[in-house]
Amino acid sequence: MKKFALIVAGGSGLRMGKEVPKQFLVLAGKPLLMHTIETFFTYDPDVEVILVLPASQFAFWDNLCEQYQFHYPVRIVPGGPFRFYSVKNGLDAIMDEGIVFIHDGVRPLVSCETIGHCYETALEKGNAVPVVPVSESVRWLGDKGNEVLDRNRIRLIQTPQTFRVSLIQKAYSFPFNEKFTDDASVLENAGHEIFLTEGNRENIKITWPEDMETAERFFTKTFR
Amino acid sequence: MKKFALIVAGGSGLRMGKEVPKQFLVLAGKPLLMHTIETFFTYDPDVEVILVLPASQFAFWDNLCEQYQFHYPVRIVPGGPFRFYSVKNGLDAIMDEGIVFIHDGVRPLVSCETIGHCYETALEKGNAVPVVPVSESVRWLGDKGNEVLDRNRIRLIQTPQTFRVSLIQKAYSFPFNEKFTDDASVLENAGHEIFLTEGNRENIKITWPEDMETAERFFTKTFR
Repeated sequence: MKKFALIVAGGSGLRMGKEVPKQFLVLAGKPLLMHTIETFFTYDPDVEVILVLPASQFAFWDNLCEQYQFHYPVRIVPGGPFRFYSVKNGLDAIMDEGIVFIHDGVRPLVSCETIGHCYETALEKGNAVPVVPVSESVRWLGDKGNEVLDRNRIRLIQTPQTFRVSLIQKAYSFPFNEKFTDDASVLENAGHEIFLTEGNRENIKITWPEDMETAERFFTKTFR
Repeated sequence: MKKFALIVAGGSGLRMGKEVPKQFLVLAGKPLLMHTIETFFTYDPDVEVILVLPASQFAFWDNLCEQYQFHYPVRIVPGGPFRFYSVKNGLDAIMDEGIVFIHDGVRPLVSCETIGHCYETALEKGNAVPVVPVSESVRWLGDKGNEVLDRNRIRLIQTPQTFRVSLIQKAYSFPFNEKFTDDASVLENAGHEIFLTEGNRENIKITWPEDMETAERFFTKTFR
């Protein structure tokens, strides 16, 4: 079945304490967004990549592609004011049925194995969300104090959250709701059960400066 | 009030894929357990440190102290078959009232600020557990499928979990229970409310090989 990778890169980089938006930070020789995109082409050279980027960054991205000789075929779609609208814009650009991987641009350490798990599960069940267990004890802040949560029942959510195209497009036609914390919650709102699959522990969202160091290490030593 | 640091170091190092137990891995020039202990002396030079170690590692630890010229006054207590019994052994060695910090030996990145928060809260309320927010979306595996958890209500638990000595000693006199996932849950079982305080994000439990690299970076660059 046709595969689409919808890469969402809307970051402004404020939390990193840097001028450059996070997706453009250089990791092992090139902007990390390029690593993210490349991984999907490594997984399947025929994947159709749609990159959602703030319109204000289009020219900058073009320059980067020149500078780093990055010539993969990538369609660019302008982002919206919030992630929900960015994803919606990206989904609106898909005209065929297939499987769509909706992936954070700042998760360059996703493995091909994780993408493969997502594809298989989404093909069979209509959706797939990669998850990993949590290694710390966990507490829940209730209205009347806090309590231990059984950490064996907790999973941390990663991307690519993966869907049959028509299902997620339909789910995104509902109006925005504050409960939408990720793409899976949008599909859930449309009445679908969510299916979890195995993610990879290194697949972190680059959020803090030290995440860049962790990522750098994976690219230069262990990861590839 | 008198301060005790009960450092629990029972690791066998299997998950790290190394022969040396985790607490002895060398970080920024010395075994990480030494960094952990030093931080408590930095916080308060008068702290009384009790180190709980498997009896089989006593001689090895002595040799390390010679080799690294590590001469802080540390009382050594033998560990038990599980963490619960190791902590109990450590608590049994405390004869005075005071505040006890129960801390994982493999968390060398705890900040003095976190220890300070714990002390202040435990002094006032009887106990304190340092926590940090979670940066990923979270799902709960229920009996009938999985559901989104409001991540704003979730906190990851760190150490030092901190207690008035008499309270936690009494709580540890109850028989072992499978619900005891950490020291706070032992106190909770004895009928006490648990009070949360602010931890520090870097205060990770060294569990995986990449954690060592993260820790190394903190010690050599940012952290001190």
